[in-house]
Amino acid sequence: MPELRRDPVVGRWVIIAPERARRPSDGSAPAAPRPPGMCPFCPGHEDKTPPEVYVWGRSPQAPPNGPGWRVRVVPNRFPALKIEGDLDRQAEGIYDRMNGVGAHEVIVETPDHQRQMKDLPSQEITEVLFAFKARILDLRNDLRFRYILLFKNEGPQAGATLEHAHSQLIALPIVPRHVVEEIEGAKKHYDAKERCIFCDVVGQERKDRSRLVHENDEFVVFAPWAPRSPFETWIVPKRHESNYEAEPRERLGLLGQALGTTLRRLAAALGNPAFNFIVHSNPLRDGPSPSYHWHVEVMPALTQVAGFEWGSGFHINPVPPEEAAEFLRKVQG
Amino acid sequence: MPELRRDPVVGRWVIIAPERARRPSDGSAPAAPRPPGMCPFCPGHEDKTPPEVYVWGRSPQAPPNGPGWRVRVVPNRFPALKIEGDLDRQAEGIYDRMNGVGAHEVIVETPDHQRQMKDLPSQEITEVLFAFKARILDLRNDLRFRYILLFKNEGPQAGATLEHAHSQLIALPIVPRHVVEEIEGAKKHYDAKERCIFCDVVGQERKDRSRLVHENDEFVVFAPWAPRSPFETWIVPKRHESNYEAEPRERLGLLGQALGTTLRRLAAALGNPAFNFIVHSNPLRDGPSPSYHWHVEVMPALTQVAGFEWGSGFHINPVPPEEAAEFLRKVQG
Repeated sequence: MPELRRDPVVGRWVIIAPERARRPSDGSAPAAPRPPGMCPFCPGHEDKTPPEVYVWGRSPQAPPNGPGWRVRVVPNRFPALKIEGDLDRQAEGIYDRMNGVGAHEVIVETPDHQRQMKDLPSQEITEVLFAFKARILDLRNDLRFRYILLFKNEGPQAGATLEHAHSQLIALPIVPRHVVEEIEGAKKHYDAKERCIFCDVVGQERKDRSRLVHENDEFVVFAPWAPRSPFETWIVPKRHESNYEAEPRERLGLLGQALGTTLRRLAAALGNPAFNFIVHSNPLRDGPSPSYHWHVEVMPALTQVAGFEWGSGFHINPVPPEEAAEFLRKVQG
Repeated sequence: MPELRRDPVVGRWVIIAPERARRPSDGSAPAAPRPPGMCPFCPGHEDKTPPEVYVWGRSPQAPPNGPGWRVRVVPNRFPALKIEGDLDRQAEGIYDRMNGVGAHEVIVETPDHQRQMKDLPSQEITEVLFAFKARILDLRNDLRFRYILLFKNEGPQAGATLEHAHSQLIALPIVPRHVVEEIEGAKKHYDAKERCIFCDVVGQERKDRSRLVHENDEFVVFAPWAPRSPFETWIVPKRHESNYEAEPRERLGLLGQALGTTLRRLAAALGNPAFNFIVHSNPLRDGPSPSYHWHVEVMPALTQVAGFEWGSGFHINPVPPEEAAEFLRKVQG
């Protein structure tokens, strides 16, 4: 059983998950690409994963866990957290631990082994975004969970161990620290100004334009003012909304367009870099928030976290966001 | 001129340092090892670095910036922050920026290109630790600086771009966020209990012994309760002391012994892994603190930071610290 342990000084939780060490690749060495014939995410290999929890595009007459799907969500075979068990909290002397209860799922984005997310038409990316929403709406019924983090690792340098296009979600019994920091920072701004800080950022970026990469009717894509790594890019809804899962289908369609052009621009500018993206949204048990604003952060895996970053929490970024944005505006998206 | 920029939501500072992109390797691709004849840190090549700011072991009769030294400290040729300039703070709309004022120095640990820190006898490691102390005592006279972070990157996977054994320091005009979090967490514990949390941790680790790796008269080496990565190892003074630079020579001698055995054990257990270490100490302008306790954190570079870690601040660690410590106790140190 995985276990959550809390650092006694800073309160940081760590997931101790010994079973993850049994994965085909442990993340320290990039996995060799598997030929499509061996890929557990390819159609025809549905029995190589745990049974699906969501599927899109398969005819209702066809049997589950067989081919014919366009998006398929399955539990991770080597989960960081386990779905069974109670949220038991225990002391060990001065230390705290908790059962590693949670969910860890894989969203297989396309049946086609040869295409990455950037190669999918907007409509197909949007179907993946619908799957994200459907999984949040389902998992939030489990009252043990307080947060669902959606993320994607593409390329071995970004921590991906399988090549077939996929994203992941982890449902957690705790609101993660980075989200708490955003919520608290946004709350402070709201208390002072009665405005959402993200709405203010969107306003300034649209006016200033030097960090702007792209916009459509509902979303703005820009290089943030203080990016942690070169070509970090954010996708933020123009309208205030705290919860991803509250977005209607039309707006997720425009997110699909914005995400697609962002990934294609990064691929063109940097030569198909490995990258991560994460979705930050309001915690499951909180009502709609006037101060918090959901968004997507995309980060190419170009720099390494070294001693200075570990020790300080500072990041050193050699590329000013204005230069990155100018580059991303010029390339084909 | 590098620039410090503050994220408007979470308050995280980022160093935008365009000149770092001109380094021989930018960290994204490991640098090819240079033959000793080309190494700027080897004796005889002292003119390949900026003039030294500290030297140990060279005869007082010998000219500066020539051979004969045992430890040599020089400014980094590609600094993340610059020593010249004022601490100018400016607004840009809703955003904040500051001149990138600071110091970035390299501590060359030995004249011998063939030896890494773990290969040095304790006495030579201790001479490096004296250099750390001497540089803090000198740089703290510059009132623009509020913190000095000492760190080491060894091996390309840990962010090192040069092979010759060296550590680094960065003097900062801000106390970094990770240190602030530790200071605040420790203060909370002290307010509740009137005890230092690190002293409590040392007490529990010495009693429990399951995470203990090594101890000598003054230092304890252990795997922390909630390690962020496999084989993370801390070296903590047994006696309460908030400031590294307050340690007398004898105790730095025992730190040299503890650090040497830690690095040799990690090398034996993991096959010479790339690693980082950092020294966390009380900020320069604060007096001695009853609640904060300086220490060294050593982290082998075995896992990658991927989307989940970026997005959450959680870390997933497949190796329980009790198993890591058992392993490290058994190997030759």
